[in-house]
Amino acid sequence: MTTASRGRIDKRQSILTAAFTVFARRGYAEACVKEIAEEAGVAKPTVYNHLNDKENLFRHAIEAAADEVMAANLEVVERLREPGDDLRAALEDVAHRLAQVCCGERSRSLRRLTYGQVARFPELIELVQARTSDKVAEALADRLARFSLAGRLRSCDPAVASGQLLALLTGPLENRSHLGTRKVPATEVRAVSDAAVDTFLRAYAAG
Amino acid sequence: MTTASRGRIDKRQSILTAAFTVFARRGYAEACVKEIAEEAGVAKPTVYNHLNDKENLFRHAIEAAADEVMAANLEVVERLREPGDDLRAALEDVAHRLAQVCCGERSRSLRRLTYGQVARFPELIELVQARTSDKVAEALADRLARFSLAGRLRSCDPAVASGQLLALLTGPLENRSHLGTRKVPATEVRAVSDAAVDTFLRAYAAG
Repeated sequence: MTTASRGRIDKRQSILTAAFTVFARRGYAEACVKEIAEEAGVAKPTVYNHLNDKENLFRHAIEAAADEVMAANLEVVERLREPGDDLRAALEDVAHRLAQVCCGERSRSLRRLTYGQVARFPELIELVQARTSDKVAEALADRLARFSLAGRLRSCDPAVASGQLLALLTGPLENRSHLGTRKVPATEVRAVSDAAVDTFLRAYAAG
Repeated sequence: MTTASRGRIDKRQSILTAAFTVFARRGYAEACVKEIAEEAGVAKPTVYNHLNDKENLFRHAIEAAADEVMAANLEVVERLREPGDDLRAALEDVAHRLAQVCCGERSRSLRRLTYGQVARFPELIELVQARTSDKVAEALADRLARFSLAGRLRSCDPAVASGQLLALLTGPLENRSHLGTRKVPATEVRAVSDAAVDTFLRAYAAG
């Protein structure tokens, strides 16, 4: 890749990051391209040059943010490749980190913005869901399948088990965050993730 | 109550039901008071007379729909007062009925409309959540507390157990319904609710 095309990709990325920040701050209707250009430190025509119009900017900013949340979640699940001897401790660590991503500013803004624009951008719900919850559920199912095969969890459908562990985690957190509009205190995040793992292991521990 | 005030309440109720139907059909922005009046079979000034303006109409229509969903859910949970000898069968029945309410047209429209208007009506999320998920979680916790005391479930925090059973139920359904934008097939609803009860009982069955 040439330095010029690398530079172009970096600029596009920084415009998308700035756009997401401004959409999260103002909401879709109130956000304007001028503020996005200022946030990205580029001229307004540069934004149009890269991303046409506000709708296109929104779509791509949401997509980029979903990719970041997905990467953060997948990195957490990767920790289960080397769980060590204490499976409970490993699951508690991973569940707590996933809960923190879920309650983090970026993830909450992503949900708030996507839900809030469901009428205008109905296709974004599926895109965000495919990249965030579906991808992490799949990755987690892979790890649980290995534990099950190794006799560290009972024999089970790993996709169901993975979906349930994530539901035990995110359900109570979504309730407490009022769909991303309230920040959940750290002690509550920890209590929810520990309770999720406890129930999960009671249901799925080997024999 | 006089016949006149009874009639006034009935008329208000039918305007709210019509308003919810039209908002669900068109979305907030596209819905108009003229169509709501037609749907309710009243004159347009009658709508304004009862409910001022479109914002007020929306707020009260959402509130009334949340009350209906809440009533439907509470009626289902009530069935656990007389669970009979087979606790698993009773929980499966109740879980399946709750899942059906959750996937029903009214409940899905309620979520879609509330999420979609979070920027304009942020207070509605808490109102809807308080009346639907919080109320049903409380009622379910009461029933689980009794089962725990009677030795039919292990000793547990009934609020946590109730929140987890509901999370096991609604998490996978929300995923499959893409936040209320897709209708979930009946076989999937049944599979999710049976899996939820199975995991719940593995985690919470008495010793």
